[in-house]
Amino acid sequence: MSAPDKFSGVLTPVITPFTDDLAPDAERLIRQCKWMLSQNVGLAVFGTNSEANSLSTDEKIELMDRLIEGGIDPKRMMPGTGCCALSDSVKLTAHAAKLGCGGTLMLPPFYYKGVSDDGLYASYSEIIQKVGDANLRIYLYHIPPISNVPLSLGLIERLIKDYPDTVVGIKDSSGEWSNTKAMLDAGWDDFRIFAGAESFLLDNMRNGGSGCISATANVNPAAIHNLYANWQSDEADELQAGLDVVRNIFQAYPMIPALKAAAAIYGDDPDWCRVRPPLMALDEAQMAGLTQDLKAIDFAMPGLKDAA
Amino acid sequence: MSAPDKFSGVLTPVITPFTDDLAPDAERLIRQCKWMLSQNVGLAVFGTNSEANSLSTDEKIELMDRLIEGGIDPKRMMPGTGCCALSDSVKLTAHAAKLGCGGTLMLPPFYYKGVSDDGLYASYSEIIQKVGDANLRIYLYHIPPISNVPLSLGLIERLIKDYPDTVVGIKDSSGEWSNTKAMLDAGWDDFRIFAGAESFLLDNMRNGGSGCISATANVNPAAIHNLYANWQSDEADELQAGLDVVRNIFQAYPMIPALKAAAAIYGDDPDWCRVRPPLMALDEAQMAGLTQDLKAIDFAMPGLKDAA
Repeated sequence: MSAPDKFSGVLTPVITPFTDDLAPDAERLIRQCKWMLSQNVGLAVFGTNSEANSLSTDEKIELMDRLIEGGIDPKRMMPGTGCCALSDSVKLTAHAAKLGCGGTLMLPPFYYKGVSDDGLYASYSEIIQKVGDANLRIYLYHIPPISNVPLSLGLIERLIKDYPDTVVGIKDSSGEWSNTKAMLDAGWDDFRIFAGAESFLLDNMRNGGSGCISATANVNPAAIHNLYANWQSDEADELQAGLDVVRNIFQAYPMIPALKAAAAIYGDDPDWCRVRPPLMALDEAQMAGLTQDLKAIDFAMPGLKDAA
Repeated sequence: MSAPDKFSGVLTPVITPFTDDLAPDAERLIRQCKWMLSQNVGLAVFGTNSEANSLSTDEKIELMDRLIEGGIDPKRMMPGTGCCALSDSVKLTAHAAKLGCGGTLMLPPFYYKGVSDDGLYASYSEIIQKVGDANLRIYLYHIPPISNVPLSLGLIERLIKDYPDTVVGIKDSSGEWSNTKAMLDAGWDDFRIFAGAESFLLDNMRNGGSGCISATANVNPAAIHNLYANWQSDEADELQAGLDVVRNIFQAYPMIPALKAAAAIYGDDPDWCRVRPPLMALDEAQMAGLTQDLKAIDFAMPGLKDAA
């Protein structure tokens, strides 16, 4: 198996559908992934907005297998494989590497708080060594608002230095442009820096970044990819402003249920609304509000129904 | 299998030993549990201070089985079974109930932040219903400084009301006496309220609480149980002050590595020092400091070496 190319462009934490018993629905996920790929959006399955942290390691392994059996190209997949437990992270990461995934997006262990950079380094380092796969490509996942375990610039630099062929990029979901900018300015050779939302896509591209990995690429993939492909054009600022309008609508609701609601509405497939606790589906008023807000901007998800 | 009695007294999140490959060391854990029981301390295995959140569900199931095969009474066990993933929590909780554990200590799903009481209620409710075991006894686990997902009084009350035979107690590790007091004053019939540290043991007992579940009961079990057994005596305040002296020493170091270091020192068993990343063992200076601090108060862990 050849070493995977590094990722660039737009990826999304693909939303995870559930059956009426709240089991993961592999068939519906395959269809969603195919639609994403048809829109030039890569598959950061098992991200935060995939409700990945509400899935067990075995469920994620089963879903990865099913996706690949279903014809999804593993090179377009960047599954989230960072868990609380070292043993889970190793098992899941090893499986992703074995399947030939283009990379994995890796949270730090996030239960224990106030841990040291040495401890986080040891965690990533143990995983890399225990997996022991030359084709493993890790994209770090910095999302302090949710993980409450930040990745410092010093830690990132140390990992790049010690594992230059393995630790090849990062998703910055800090929500702070200054943090992304500091990474872009750090001079890390061909280290792929992804904004955690399309809100920073244009800024990221103008400063040497590699794209974005964004929740709302689940619902607005073509337009986000269009900005990525045309960030040097005269219309780039206008394209960014257009993306922001859509993003702001979704951000006014609980994000994951709202993304699923949009898939339900525009895919004419109400089963998409299901979430696993502790999340809750949008209530009636929220559903009506989102429907109305999206209608008001003539929002569409072209091709979704055909994919379903 | 008869329904378990409700817990009272002192329990501890038993520290988890690791082999040199960082695998859980069942034999050493069995010995530690036997020593704990010999000191009248119950077994809240897989708690925060057990590094439970650095263990996979399968590792925890294997350890539970090994403990019981090793002769540990399941009625004295209150394993932590609350995970991020609904499916993990169901699997682990069902296994604990099937083994006849006296109860389970249950974190809320802790990755997603800012979730609603309805969502947390749905999580506990789904687990209870999917486990479907009349002998299941749940002790809620409120530890906002680490989980960042608090359990409100309203949520607790709703769970008690809807599952009175199942949701029978709570461990309050908020570190805020006012929160424990509010629960004690809530008038919940025979709901077992445990302080999250022995620092609040006497206050808790004087206000109708049921004991404590404390990390430092790993190292100071007899003295903590002694206060529990004699909280109505004239010496109670003095006993509490003595416990605080020991607790304050451990709190001056990273708690989990310090507990393990004490087991290593007083059990003459250096392998106890191992922790899983993201935690780090005490460094040399910390180890020397802890050794000195404990020596200065003539600290001892009587019977530990014989148990090993």
